[in-house]
Amino acid sequence: MEFSPELLGLGERARAAARRLAFADTNVKDLALRAMAAALRQGETEILAANEQDVSAAAAQGLAASLLSRLTLTPEGIRDIAGAVEAVADLPDPIGGGEFWTRPNGLKIEKTRVPLGVVAIIYEARPNVTADAAALCLKSGNACILRGGTEALRSNLVLSRLISAAAENAGLPAACVQTLPGSDRAYVEQLMRLNRYVDVLIPRGGAALIQNVVQNSTVPVIETGTGVCHAFVDAAADMDKAVRVVFNAKTNKPGVCNALETLLVHRAAAADYLPRLAAELRTAGVEMRGCPETRTLIPDALAATEADWRTEYNDFILSIRVVADLDEALDHIYRYGTKHSETILTEDCAAARRFLRETDAAAVYLNASTRFTDGGRFGFGAEIGISTQKLHTRGPMGLTELTTIKYVVYGDGQIV
Amino acid sequence: MEFSPELLGLGERARAAARRLAFADTNVKDLALRAMAAALRQGETEILAANEQDVSAAAAQGLAASLLSRLTLTPEGIRDIAGAVEAVADLPDPIGGGEFWTRPNGLKIEKTRVPLGVVAIIYEARPNVTADAAALCLKSGNACILRGGTEALRSNLVLSRLISAAAENAGLPAACVQTLPGSDRAYVEQLMRLNRYVDVLIPRGGAALIQNVVQNSTVPVIETGTGVCHAFVDAAADMDKAVRVVFNAKTNKPGVCNALETLLVHRAAAADYLPRLAAELRTAGVEMRGCPETRTLIPDALAATEADWRTEYNDFILSIRVVADLDEALDHIYRYGTKHSETILTEDCAAARRFLRETDAAAVYLNASTRFTDGGRFGFGAEIGISTQKLHTRGPMGLTELTTIKYVVYGDGQIV
Repeated sequence: MEFSPELLGLGERARAAARRLAFADTNVKDLALRAMAAALRQGETEILAANEQDVSAAAAQGLAASLLSRLTLTPEGIRDIAGAVEAVADLPDPIGGGEFWTRPNGLKIEKTRVPLGVVAIIYEARPNVTADAAALCLKSGNACILRGGTEALRSNLVLSRLISAAAENAGLPAACVQTLPGSDRAYVEQLMRLNRYVDVLIPRGGAALIQNVVQNSTVPVIETGTGVCHAFVDAAADMDKAVRVVFNAKTNKPGVCNALETLLVHRAAAADYLPRLAAELRTAGVEMRGCPETRTLIPDALAATEADWRTEYNDFILSIRVVADLDEALDHIYRYGTKHSETILTEDCAAARRFLRETDAAAVYLNASTRFTDGGRFGFGAEIGISTQKLHTRGPMGLTELTTIKYVVYGDGQIV
Repeated sequence: MEFSPELLGLGERARAAARRLAFADTNVKDLALRAMAAALRQGETEILAANEQDVSAAAAQGLAASLLSRLTLTPEGIRDIAGAVEAVADLPDPIGGGEFWTRPNGLKIEKTRVPLGVVAIIYEARPNVTADAAALCLKSGNACILRGGTEALRSNLVLSRLISAAAENAGLPAACVQTLPGSDRAYVEQLMRLNRYVDVLIPRGGAALIQNVVQNSTVPVIETGTGVCHAFVDAAADMDKAVRVVFNAKTNKPGVCNALETLLVHRAAAADYLPRLAAELRTAGVEMRGCPETRTLIPDALAATEADWRTEYNDFILSIRVVADLDEALDHIYRYGTKHSETILTEDCAAARRFLRETDAAAVYLNASTRFTDGGRFGFGAEIGISTQKLHTRGPMGLTELTTIKYVVYGDGQIV
């Protein structure tokens, strides 16, 4: 592949910045993060002006209202973004530490945490991700190359410039945060193959964006975010809990990856449970799509098709299936699950144990909402995304997940 | 991409086997490993017959002597392979364990180790890798799909069949170990894109094999093995240690990835050190290729070109460069290093600290041979390869590195 001189320059600067950031003091990094937050607050007028241009242009091109709302920044939104950057400064530094052991020949081996190096992040038109990603990468000692959605380019360039200048004033390389200079798709194609400068690529966004990166990147990828999450209501479920948790997992924020998409109900519980749940779901305007047995208990449920079991609705829609037992529920999740988050509602320890052990997912729950699969709610302070692959890490990725390891070996002339 | 029914069947069986292996008892896995070792010993005649066919065919096609020697099995070699499988049974099970924490809302979160799932391994014509890889994957609860070099196909199919039958006799799924049924290159192309069944792909072998996988796989890859390893002999080096360690790193086994390729020498040490080292290297028949300053001190050294600094010789050849100071050494490694293993020879703590901290590699050494970057020598018991990427892990990959994590969350009706 031919690389443009612009992109090569950006890659080389990122790698040089990463080289210095790798052993920057925690104090310096935290100072830079606080300076970044201050710069965002002080740059409010400039940010809003650029964002208004983005929003007008996107509206003129007919961008959907929900996407326009994600694109739009407000003075309050900017203050929230600055606050989130400061919150990252308050988190512990993930770099360093580690274990030591000594080999019989006297070699002392230390396994320590170091930054990944250069992290590229490709995301959609949400300018807040620009500051979030920059802050998490800087705190973990990584240089980042950001490529947000085209519609947010003006906003992102201003945000990135303010952040980068603040980092430089604090004594760090300006290139620790860089945004791709234009919206040319060729840049993205090249970025996905820039192995000589980029250590890891993280796509954040919808299924199409993520699949494009997985299919075309030669740079190692952390796949994020697709979730067809299941709840299984067992025969031994506490019905009140089961209604509350399933209602929450479906309706609290249906547009996100940890929202519930498919409900499986043990046949012995269905007649009692489903009508009660349906009454609740109707109050929230949830469309139900069920198997034949479900539809005898919920007359207004539509017929679910094979495609429904595979669909991440990201909407007020729930597919429902009655199953004979735990085995059938496990088989359904094995077949249709995306290994994101699955929950069982039961008071039976044996059923809980089997479900938690035999279900293959980043997070498995007993009697709790799948909506908890989130860096903040897990106690990681912040997250860069939710990994749905097995390599490197699974589930919420906080600062530690933006690091790798290095072996430091102390010898005194040892040979093999 | 169109997948052949054969490969899809193999993928589906691997995934089903992985589902069961994931929570197989340690005792059952160890029993299966011991049964596998016994089956290899009992199958000696059959293995040797298949191997002889492979070797004759390869010799007839003019395979190089060094590759023929790697391909050839002997009765003693088979007993070594069986012993290595038993050694894996003796290692601790990496699955389970983990940390617990409780959130303010009462949720208990457990971070536990689980298998990767289905691991595919593509390697060259070394039949011993077949048994090694199968044993490490089984112990870590992973199903594996193996694709060794074409020249070893007959040997591998016999080994794989014996291993698989032994696992099945011990109560595990036969498909926990499968070998691609033919040497058709189309199978490899498909395997690299079989994301729906394969969780991780590990290439083991030469640079061409690894680059083919990195460039073409959509399945997450752990890149292994390329190493342009450096030694830096500082002004404050102990000259005896520096001669011993550099000689060992270069000559002990030059064909492997952790062997030394480039020597950097501090100008203040060069006149004393280089003639002494050269005298030793000549006894082992090492060809030296040096910078102009090196050649004034080692008259028989050839002139090193730019290409030499980038070359992994895997042979009795060493490139040598005199540098002004530690900074120039660090810059050289930053520019030409492959982030595998680098060592500094010095008695100066400040220089050691800077080198160990500022050099970006899987393993960095003080006064020790780079040849220690090896799972066995690190105390991991065995290894599936050496990761030279940042994602997932770096350096020697033992059993723990063949696992990932899973969050198990215990609630009592918690909602967001």
